[in-house]
Amino acid sequence: MRAAVIAGGAVTCEERPAPVPQGGEVLVRVRAAGINGADLLQRAGHYPPPSGAPSDMPGLELAGLVESLGPAATRFRPGDRVMGIVAGAGQAELVAVHERVAMPAPAGLSWAEAGGFAEVFTTAHDALFTQCGLGPGDRLLVNGAAGGVGVAAVQLAVASGATVVASVRSPGRREALSSLGAHGAAPDEAFGLGPFDVVLELVGGPNLPRDMEALRTGGRVAVIGVGAGAIGELDLRVLMARRARISGSTLRARPLEEKALAARLVEHDVLPLLSARRVVVPVHATFPLEDVAAAYEAFSAGEKFGKIVLTIDS
Amino acid sequence: MRAAVIAGGAVTCEERPAPVPQGGEVLVRVRAAGINGADLLQRAGHYPPPSGAPSDMPGLELAGLVESLGPAATRFRPGDRVMGIVAGAGQAELVAVHERVAMPAPAGLSWAEAGGFAEVFTTAHDALFTQCGLGPGDRLLVNGAAGGVGVAAVQLAVASGATVVASVRSPGRREALSSLGAHGAAPDEAFGLGPFDVVLELVGGPNLPRDMEALRTGGRVAVIGVGAGAIGELDLRVLMARRARISGSTLRARPLEEKALAARLVEHDVLPLLSARRVVVPVHATFPLEDVAAAYEAFSAGEKFGKIVLTIDS
Repeated sequence: MRAAVIAGGAVTCEERPAPVPQGGEVLVRVRAAGINGADLLQRAGHYPPPSGAPSDMPGLELAGLVESLGPAATRFRPGDRVMGIVAGAGQAELVAVHERVAMPAPAGLSWAEAGGFAEVFTTAHDALFTQCGLGPGDRLLVNGAAGGVGVAAVQLAVASGATVVASVRSPGRREALSSLGAHGAAPDEAFGLGPFDVVLELVGGPNLPRDMEALRTGGRVAVIGVGAGAIGELDLRVLMARRARISGSTLRARPLEEKALAARLVEHDVLPLLSARRVVVPVHATFPLEDVAAAYEAFSAGEKFGKIVLTIDS
Repeated sequence: MRAAVIAGGAVTCEERPAPVPQGGEVLVRVRAAGINGADLLQRAGHYPPPSGAPSDMPGLELAGLVESLGPAATRFRPGDRVMGIVAGAGQAELVAVHERVAMPAPAGLSWAEAGGFAEVFTTAHDALFTQCGLGPGDRLLVNGAAGGVGVAAVQLAVASGATVVASVRSPGRREALSSLGAHGAAPDEAFGLGPFDVVLELVGGPNLPRDMEALRTGGRVAVIGVGAGAIGELDLRVLMARRARISGSTLRARPLEEKALAARLVEHDVLPLLSARRVVVPVHATFPLEDVAAAYEAFSAGEKFGKIVLTIDS
């Protein structure tokens, strides 16, 4: 089978042996697979994948048709449309996915949308609801909102009754975020639109002092990205006075059972919204798997809105 | 009535009008009232009390006998032994306490123990269980464990099945903490005894980087004190890799309904342990209310283990 392969800081499309589905896994014939920031970190030699995932095969999310079932797999049947997250090797023609982290791909969704859904929506859902308990009436600030996770978070929050300020530098992408129901704002302006119950931080440490100052009593900050730097200055007196909470997480390193729990929550909370198109997967661009190098370049160029997705024709 | 009064950076015992219990309050004839760090901050002109509390009358916890009932107060009867927290003016002969934040004082408890119980045990319980979800099997680090909150936290954690490392500089107090069921350790040694599921930080910002490094995956840090400085450096990459959470809080600033909820939890979780003497209130020293100035000096001198409590003879 063909697969994205990393070697010497570059990504190419190579021939590799197809995976054999193990107990509880399904083999998926991939039709689309999203690119995420972690893939580019892996290409650069950072962010080594968790044990069990190949170090030279990137890809954390995919969608396709169930090709065959591994031993004891019972949730799906061959031919089912599925999507889901994997710990690596997701950008390939065939991928083994544990059935407990796979979910049905809604009928109305294109392959590119389905392939770019799972990682970002699971990450956003986990941060907003599991970590921060976002609810109706809450005011949310999403810093650095134009990427895949940010766009997912903005929509999930709007759909669940929160008021959302989405900060991003580019005026064009501010408008796109406003069209999703958020108040698109420049970063400096956004902090002044508080106080917020929840801040989703996708930029990094330099924002931390202003995140804290912008919190309402009982506010929560979830850290998802540190592109602008990992170190932040935390004033514990502000933390105490706000009775606030800061959390951070990554999805990829979690054990299978935690990923399966997250997938069940997404299935329950998000798939109905997705089927009703109350949330959408904005696809910035698609590239065929053979052009994976160009796709990664497009991802790292920035100025995108939503997902860049690799596609594989049947 | 006599009461502790703050003026010009000093605390003295003065005559003041007795409070009149309002709706839902009981008037308590105080027999003992603990001193807390916040009282000393208030004496120094910092930490202004929340609105509604007098700015010149310190005191956050007390125990005594119900003297009379305000309108619509139904939980207690005159003569009941009660203890509880107030937003201020607790170091006085008569104090109005809302019945929902008062709780019965167990029969076996001395007045000094009861008067030094509520603030520190409520703070410790809230941080350990409500904020950090401490449970059996968890490993807990308490940094700066010899004060009232630290001693309460160590005991509550031991009684609930956690393994506890308690750090403090003084070797003598390390031994006292070990006698409560913790592993007493010097600060530098304590960090090396991780990983920990929960860290209770009573020292301040300078400890934050080592707190984070000492956490197990899914670990939680609760910040209670910042005596050594409020500013800490937070590495968000460590926060994310540990899937960790940091929270801070103060009890005093909370609205009545939150204090009442916290009191109900303490009543349910802690009073049975206190009645069985599985947790105790170590009283370092008592002073009569007239000697409040000396009591505050003894508090600020440090090197104490447990509470300093003002007493009022009947």
